[in-house]
Amino acid sequence: MIVELISVGTEILLGNIVNTNAAYLSEKCAALGLSCYYQDVVGDNEERLRETIQTALSRSDILLLSGGLGPTQDDLTKEVAASVMGKALYLHEESKAAIQAFFEKRGLEITDNNWKQAMMPEGCIVVDNPNGTAPGIIMAENGKHVILMPGPPNEMIPMFETSIMPYLGRLQSGVIFSQTVKICGVGESKVETMVKDLIEGQTNPTIATYAKTGEVHLRVTATAEGEKEARKLVKPIVKDLKARFGNNIYTTDDEVTLEKSVVDLLLANKLTISTVESCTGGLLAARLINVPGVSEVFKSGYIAYSNKAKRRLLGIKKNTLLKHGAVSKEIAKEMVKGAALVSKADVTVSVTGIAGPDGGSEEKPVGLVYIGCNVCGRITVKEYHFSGDRAKIRDNTVSAALSLMRECILQYYSEVTFGGKK
Amino acid sequence: MIVELISVGTEILLGNIVNTNAAYLSEKCAALGLSCYYQDVVGDNEERLRETIQTALSRSDILLLSGGLGPTQDDLTKEVAASVMGKALYLHEESKAAIQAFFEKRGLEITDNNWKQAMMPEGCIVVDNPNGTAPGIIMAENGKHVILMPGPPNEMIPMFETSIMPYLGRLQSGVIFSQTVKICGVGESKVETMVKDLIEGQTNPTIATYAKTGEVHLRVTATAEGEKEARKLVKPIVKDLKARFGNNIYTTDDEVTLEKSVVDLLLANKLTISTVESCTGGLLAARLINVPGVSEVFKSGYIAYSNKAKRRLLGIKKNTLLKHGAVSKEIAKEMVKGAALVSKADVTVSVTGIAGPDGGSEEKPVGLVYIGCNVCGRITVKEYHFSGDRAKIRDNTVSAALSLMRECILQYYSEVTFGGKK
Repeated sequence: MIVELISVGTEILLGNIVNTNAAYLSEKCAALGLSCYYQDVVGDNEERLRETIQTALSRSDILLLSGGLGPTQDDLTKEVAASVMGKALYLHEESKAAIQAFFEKRGLEITDNNWKQAMMPEGCIVVDNPNGTAPGIIMAENGKHVILMPGPPNEMIPMFETSIMPYLGRLQSGVIFSQTVKICGVGESKVETMVKDLIEGQTNPTIATYAKTGEVHLRVTATAEGEKEARKLVKPIVKDLKARFGNNIYTTDDEVTLEKSVVDLLLANKLTISTVESCTGGLLAARLINVPGVSEVFKSGYIAYSNKAKRRLLGIKKNTLLKHGAVSKEIAKEMVKGAALVSKADVTVSVTGIAGPDGGSEEKPVGLVYIGCNVCGRITVKEYHFSGDRAKIRDNTVSAALSLMRECILQYYSEVTFGGKK
Repeated sequence: MIVELISVGTEILLGNIVNTNAAYLSEKCAALGLSCYYQDVVGDNEERLRETIQTALSRSDILLLSGGLGPTQDDLTKEVAASVMGKALYLHEESKAAIQAFFEKRGLEITDNNWKQAMMPEGCIVVDNPNGTAPGIIMAENGKHVILMPGPPNEMIPMFETSIMPYLGRLQSGVIFSQTVKICGVGESKVETMVKDLIEGQTNPTIATYAKTGEVHLRVTATAEGEKEARKLVKPIVKDLKARFGNNIYTTDDEVTLEKSVVDLLLANKLTISTVESCTGGLLAARLINVPGVSEVFKSGYIAYSNKAKRRLLGIKKNTLLKHGAVSKEIAKEMVKGAALVSKADVTVSVTGIAGPDGGSEEKPVGLVYIGCNVCGRITVKEYHFSGDRAKIRDNTVSAALSLMRECILQYYSEVTFGGKK
């Protein structure tokens, strides 16, 4: 089936906000096996909204609209969509009660326009919104499905996952099952080359490549009569991918991020960690601290941007700085050593590099980064060359550091376990 | 004039990438005084791309297309747009030479398909692309302007700013001048209330409100025959806004960010700074370290997520932690004191809070944050209540901390200067 996304909101047309809803919904629809050929953005304008919905109905089976369900006069999505579908609005008592409860719980006063949100198109399915006052709406007729969701992502996403996704799943003939294989430490083009034969020969399951910052995700999707059969189709492909990418696969679980996989590895091995950052200025620690439960393993984070701070915080010698420069293999090594000494953490990781736009030279260009990782006294330092602007270089550095930490911890334990040198 | 944005690329339809180009172009077009009523996303498909361009031509004056100018067979934007406009393609010798030079400089081999990028529609304007091999293209006929740009933001943005923006400016009758007034420390709805009378009465200049994380931007835009006259129209409005918002305006310069304004204030007063963060885990330091030249003022950053780290890094007493809890006014105060003691910085700023999703209680709910700021021994601590998910709470906290730092430094100097208590 063909799905079309319509984002409603003048704030998107003015560039006030980035349309992250569309990216989120596109990825989810692709995973559901729905084809998306068009995405539209239209403002809160009756005539143009009507035209957009009509055009979309003429070429797509499912319309996913987000935005324009608020209580103000500007919010027109429900009224226009219902009118295009030929449905009158009526007062939906349960929605009225839910709105009342929402306001009372928060001690807020209800204004007259709030009741507008309890008006529903005849014969529609009203979808619960636990995070706001605008319920979702599903209208279905003659094989067309018009689905309205609120615009704020913190309302739209939970509603989509709880109610809309299962509805869309039921529209499909057969069951779709997909699993994501997440890879770090291998570049996008190399991953693509390594799975080219699989992608070229694919029909069911299909394999789709998603390049993320410093990682590549492969989504394997199968369609079958039941979930069990679909899972059975996906399994051998995932097994094949595991054989091809080995330890570079950090998870096959959709919910696990790279930082979570690192924290899990630390927790499993009862290791503590400290970070010491120069050019990333705290971003690496911030990513680790994104993971719930990290307080058990995270000892301290140091941000040593200037040479002085490197000396004072970590005891790095002036001579080493003068001889090799702050962005060097030697300093990355001294940084992890210093951090281990002052923080007593089992694992320490250091970042020093030139994120630009200034500070580069012929010998040490913008994008040159050294990352050091010390696991229980065993130190690895790697050199990286990233391109892009300051933000992109910093983001890539953080992902590379997480990837290197994972690699070093795994390496340490494989050698310890198999009796190799320690 | 009416502008329509068309983003071409199957990777957007699959949710592989977020369409940041559209947000960027929308904001720029609004600043140019162009009205945008529709944004479209379409895949690399001949028929659907043709239909989208035709529809857009029927309702808009200017079409801004991005993406699909690459060398592969999938890339169809130029071919389809030229065909809709009734233009044949010819080999453009200068583009051919530019492509050759681009590859030679990088020591890369030219494949046959690269020459596809040197084919240009008859009578078009070829637009230089210093960052890639796909030139931009402008086709103009019968009052319609079809503009093609490459998809990668690092190619599209410089091309837009250097070549396309001036072209669009010349299409407008008169000159448009706009200035942005950036406000921190005042909420979005309060800003809107405070300028409601100005916005309601506006014709030329106009005032547009942009809510950013922890800040609000007001863009004042005027149209006049010449730039001088346009500037003259904007000036009294900006003066009026300055009177209304006073010190909460941190800049009227488009290029200055909140973190830069804080770093500038530190530099101007020869103050050094250290940060100490709990729930933001390094994000505050990372924002400051985004500013070139920060190394002159930034002493050290500490990330003390656990209670143990707070005690060890900053010498915070166990008793204070036990009595008040880590998320408390008292601990925020101890954190800035401790950081001042160990880092010897003039200004220290601390963050402690509950970013969620877990860790909240009735008494201390998710979103409760304390930010402390110490300027030369004078300590301020403020309590905040943020809503949203973990990422949003952390981002809002960082902006609030920057805003508070600014306020405290200004306050300190105004009292020192005017002989108030220190």
